[in-house]
Amino acid sequence: MKEEYNPIQFKDHKLILLDQRVLPLEEVFHSLETLEQAHWAIKEMIVRGAPCIGFTAIFGMALWLKNHQNFTTAELNQAGDYLKSARPTAVNLNFEVDRVIAMVQDLTNQEAYEKVVSFGHLQISKSETENRAMAKTAYAELEERLGKKKYNILTHCNTGFLACGSIGTALGVVQHLHENDQLELAWVDETRPYLQGSRLTAYELVKLGAPHKVVVEGAASYLMKTGQVDAIFTGADRIVANGDTANKVGTSNLSILAKHYNIPFYIVAPSSSFDLSIQSGEKIEIELRDENEILSYKNNRIAPIESTAFNPSFDITDGQLITGIINEKGIAQGNYLESLPRIVHAD
Amino acid sequence: MKEEYNPIQFKDHKLILLDQRVLPLEEVFHSLETLEQAHWAIKEMIVRGAPCIGFTAIFGMALWLKNHQNFTTAELNQAGDYLKSARPTAVNLNFEVDRVIAMVQDLTNQEAYEKVVSFGHLQISKSETENRAMAKTAYAELEERLGKKKYNILTHCNTGFLACGSIGTALGVVQHLHENDQLELAWVDETRPYLQGSRLTAYELVKLGAPHKVVVEGAASYLMKTGQVDAIFTGADRIVANGDTANKVGTSNLSILAKHYNIPFYIVAPSSSFDLSIQSGEKIEIELRDENEILSYKNNRIAPIESTAFNPSFDITDGQLITGIINEKGIAQGNYLESLPRIVHAD
Repeated sequence: MKEEYNPIQFKDHKLILLDQRVLPLEEVFHSLETLEQAHWAIKEMIVRGAPCIGFTAIFGMALWLKNHQNFTTAELNQAGDYLKSARPTAVNLNFEVDRVIAMVQDLTNQEAYEKVVSFGHLQISKSETENRAMAKTAYAELEERLGKKKYNILTHCNTGFLACGSIGTALGVVQHLHENDQLELAWVDETRPYLQGSRLTAYELVKLGAPHKVVVEGAASYLMKTGQVDAIFTGADRIVANGDTANKVGTSNLSILAKHYNIPFYIVAPSSSFDLSIQSGEKIEIELRDENEILSYKNNRIAPIESTAFNPSFDITDGQLITGIINEKGIAQGNYLESLPRIVHAD
Repeated sequence: MKEEYNPIQFKDHKLILLDQRVLPLEEVFHSLETLEQAHWAIKEMIVRGAPCIGFTAIFGMALWLKNHQNFTTAELNQAGDYLKSARPTAVNLNFEVDRVIAMVQDLTNQEAYEKVVSFGHLQISKSETENRAMAKTAYAELEERLGKKKYNILTHCNTGFLACGSIGTALGVVQHLHENDQLELAWVDETRPYLQGSRLTAYELVKLGAPHKVVVEGAASYLMKTGQVDAIFTGADRIVANGDTANKVGTSNLSILAKHYNIPFYIVAPSSSFDLSIQSGEKIEIELRDENEILSYKNNRIAPIESTAFNPSFDITDGQLITGIINEKGIAQGNYLESLPRIVHAD
């Protein structure tokens, strides 16, 4: 990826993050040197998207190791708990913090630091390979199910390189279609309240030179009814045993509309976003975010000063409404209690 | 209604409109003296909502009559066509312009002007009576179907006094429940891209002192799934013979989600919004609006400068997905081809 817009880099013992809050109109990079700064970057959404949050978690723990000589297990766990608290719904955050803690238990401070930094770099490069694999699986599924020359794809939130560090999950499918000259149009849900679609997904599609149009979430039924959507692809923050999927609020709406119009609806996510120890989506905690994300836009108040808002950041899409769940190892369909373990635990 | 926020008044031979574009943070009134200004006010959405567009149409034609001595029928029709072109989807605009043309054919200029002004005032006062009747019908339906002590109502766009000149259609139901201490909470869809919900509906609910929370459209499935919505009420721009209803984009989404969760979904609109000469929604033209409504907010660009958007302003809700359609004469349910004529043509 071109360094000029590479969203996450670790060099000279610093974590460099592209500030996704000010995109697409400004490209600002932050240079982080402490765990506290990594916590801030995750919480304030400098960095976002499950995979990039995971990478930031790894490098954030590395920064802590760099700064703490002769740490105890208790201190290490405390640092991990602190970092995890930055975004409670993000399973990648927990997953990567726990992996780091497990791998450094018996190492000296310097060994631990170097090991975690290498591990972070390895995860980013592995992610790119995996994202390519997901895109190919999705493409094969589209060819088999629809067999069209070109596809109109609707997507929600942002799941491209800004979220994933490399080509992306759901947006990776769009990129792959575009590279094969099989993308008719990408419909980009603007994705209120944080506008990840119109700000970030549109930014990536511009960088890729891919045809796209931004739409409001309210236009989804109109687009589907008028035959302008061939398939829907979204990412996931967490997928549980029965296929229930936590993702950006509005995803569940799309799955219900897709079912109504008989349009295939897919989730694309790396194995690290799966948590098959949880039986159903009811057990997933939903993050409630600041109501000002809805009531104001860049300090311009929209609603009356006396009004309040309710801002659940995620929703749960019923596994039953999902046509297929794709990870780097393949696609699960039908009874997810049986099909998900096959793609999550495959070699 | 208190004059301080009465959205439409005709006095001293001028049409006074509250500028709904700058609400809720500013209360600005425009004083119009020509047909061209009325056209501008409708097109630029100074005034909006089917009923208020209708009233503006009447007073706009009155202003033309005031300014044109010894008009010919051809000139009158030309003026009407011009005014109709301001918002092609709004059936009230056509309806009221045609009524004005029919009533002034054989009158002198001064007689015609006075007759149309009186007619405009009569329509506003009739509208209030009718809105009250709709709210009572909706309330009786809720009591019969759900019989709860208090209700959580979700609504879309703006259908209160700002849209209707008086208490409103769908929001009139919310007001009626609130006045009877039976409103638990009104969920206000912010209604992208124009934010009629967070700007206008929230403004009205603040003025009424009614409990409300603003939500993004994407949160609808989350709210319904978690049992926080008892019923949905929206207005309509046009209702045709089979119950298919054109309304603000996003309404169709809500009807499909409501069906999925088995939540009753109602349309509330005056008879003037019905056009039973049209058989189905496929025949309704959908207005496409400026893409900048999506790509920018108050001259702050949101999306990359290279990106485009697609902005259908309305969608068509299938009659089959509508639990009931309410007007001032009653409620239609079931087979709308049979039930709608009964409430539209009733005495």
